[in-house]
Amino acid sequence: MMSVRTIDELDTPAVLIDLDRLESNIQRMAGYCRERGLALRPHTKTHKNPGIAKLQIEAGARGITVAKPGEAEVMVNAGIDDVLLAYPIVGDAKAARVAELATKARVRVSLDSLEAIRGLSQQAAARSVELGILLEIDAGFGRCGVASPEAALALARAAADSPGLRFDGLMFYPGHIKRPAAEQDPLIEAVNQRLAAHYAAFLRAGMPITTVSGGSTATAYRSHDFHGVSEIRPGMYAFLDRNMVTIGVGTFEECAISVLVTVVSDAVPKRVMLDGGSKTFSSDAMFVGDGRGYGYVINHPDAEFIGLSEEHGHVDVSLCARAPRVGQRLRVVPNHVCTTINMHDRVYGVRGDQVEREIEVAARGRVQ
Amino acid sequence: MMSVRTIDELDTPAVLIDLDRLESNIQRMAGYCRERGLALRPHTKTHKNPGIAKLQIEAGARGITVAKPGEAEVMVNAGIDDVLLAYPIVGDAKAARVAELATKARVRVSLDSLEAIRGLSQQAAARSVELGILLEIDAGFGRCGVASPEAALALARAAADSPGLRFDGLMFYPGHIKRPAAEQDPLIEAVNQRLAAHYAAFLRAGMPITTVSGGSTATAYRSHDFHGVSEIRPGMYAFLDRNMVTIGVGTFEECAISVLVTVVSDAVPKRVMLDGGSKTFSSDAMFVGDGRGYGYVINHPDAEFIGLSEEHGHVDVSLCARAPRVGQRLRVVPNHVCTTINMHDRVYGVRGDQVEREIEVAARGRVQ
Repeated sequence: MMSVRTIDELDTPAVLIDLDRLESNIQRMAGYCRERGLALRPHTKTHKNPGIAKLQIEAGARGITVAKPGEAEVMVNAGIDDVLLAYPIVGDAKAARVAELATKARVRVSLDSLEAIRGLSQQAAARSVELGILLEIDAGFGRCGVASPEAALALARAAADSPGLRFDGLMFYPGHIKRPAAEQDPLIEAVNQRLAAHYAAFLRAGMPITTVSGGSTATAYRSHDFHGVSEIRPGMYAFLDRNMVTIGVGTFEECAISVLVTVVSDAVPKRVMLDGGSKTFSSDAMFVGDGRGYGYVINHPDAEFIGLSEEHGHVDVSLCARAPRVGQRLRVVPNHVCTTINMHDRVYGVRGDQVEREIEVAARGRVQ
Repeated sequence: MMSVRTIDELDTPAVLIDLDRLESNIQRMAGYCRERGLALRPHTKTHKNPGIAKLQIEAGARGITVAKPGEAEVMVNAGIDDVLLAYPIVGDAKAARVAELATKARVRVSLDSLEAIRGLSQQAAARSVELGILLEIDAGFGRCGVASPEAALALARAAADSPGLRFDGLMFYPGHIKRPAAEQDPLIEAVNQRLAAHYAAFLRAGMPITTVSGGSTATAYRSHDFHGVSEIRPGMYAFLDRNMVTIGVGTFEECAISVLVTVVSDAVPKRVMLDGGSKTFSSDAMFVGDGRGYGYVINHPDAEFIGLSEEHGHVDVSLCARAPRVGQRLRVVPNHVCTTINMHDRVYGVRGDQVEREIEVAARGRVQ
């Protein structure tokens, strides 16, 4: 299958992973976590590939994070033995699959409802396995997680009292902090106030917390400022993307992902069309910055990627000194690495101009 | 694999295709085209499944439309023998694949550049096959297609003079008309003026046009108002979606697609989280109406689907008389049927509450 030797021989569109940069980004985060005494549990939704997950573990990660049981199955079946499902597992079918995984690996689940506790307990007890439970608290994002320490404590007790479950601690996702955190960052301080209220309640109740799992790529290198956090779950850090560069987490020169595309039409004045649209890049708009644009055109920063059809990337070239023409190939850093990779069955690991290997997006599309 | 008998037994998220509605929508468009003497060539990017394409052909469609060679290969290998690639084919690798397909099926390609003509001619001539060429003209959308009749004529002559190519006529896509066209619609009249200028130039030049391919779902039932159009290429008409219902092309009761989801968290006040986000629905915002929202929650129209994470659908339930709770299942009509189906390896054909069959999204993710 893999007879291609150089990037020039790849047909387009194709997602390229710069392996040197990937390895460097993986090492950098592993080094930060080592220095700060934090456990690293990368969210593998970004790449969905067990081989890259193993690179992260070899560099020092304690285990991995996934969202859906189908993703966990791909990872555990590939030999990864420590998985957090950072997603509420609701329904007997999924609870049974998660309990089944616990016969092969150390499995923890985050949750925020009695329904999830009951379902997981029943399935775990039936298999005589133990699932670690992290109670999700809302750090201010307003997505999942309980708000009050009383609610957290009640659910933690229910988990601790349920056969097959072991209460391990708290989890949160600071998804509302969409910029790299600063020193004495007021958004982090607000999270710390919420965390402190929970810690106090659990301490008063004599309920031990052994893990506090937090972290996102935007905040990752300030994780030591979140009080009590023992583990972090960044995903995008290994690749970076236009969102992360825009907020200053890294530079385009550190981005390990780009999409190789071809100009397929320049018939309309001031426009060229790329052979990748939302089916290649996903339709994710920027979630930081001014919200405009669908990618950064490397070597043509004066070309503005202004729109997406499913198979067309609409590029405004009115400011280009020399606009790209039909047949020319470009490389584009996508807005969002996770959703871009999920559009593809395989991506290509490259070093310089050489294609080193195909990388199967093995857990792609596992929505269940 | 398919032991499930009722929708209640399906795990979520799962895309459901109401087969009664699908068949009815297919018949309705086929009937309209028969009445008006229009050839129907459905764009199969919407469903990416040869079985549904065959239903469309059995109902009267002359052939099918695809974008990428990979999609054409799936369809031709399943026995479909008349395919239009409504996409500029640029680059030797793709031109070779398209010419190869012409050894097995009647193949036409739309294009708007000399580069595409040269590449296809070379590969077709090398295989002694003939590719039909439709010259794409810009009807006002500003994506692909030449603007001037002179440019169109020059390219048409180049195609007609190229070994292995046969000039068949013109193609356009009225993607800028994002509402159902009215009688004496000014947007259609503007397209007609452009078409008339091209027809006049080709007539003067003695260059025969045998096909004029147009049409989109938004304008489909007014296709007879586009002067000279002989064939249309709607895709979404077979399913409809929230975009199409919003502009009045159909009703939610006629939508053949819905996504079955489960509420997995209700911990945050005034919110519930669905187990489907952008990885299930795609991140396509509405491209008509006020642009808000990510789906229509059937039976909970007072629940507002306000946001997407990759695996979470954020629903505002503050206006709900009885908000859905954790574990409850909902059905949601997505914004955009094409991009939603492309997120899934398989969807489920249902009649009422019965799951009749799994439908493989066989041409999913074929970006090349």
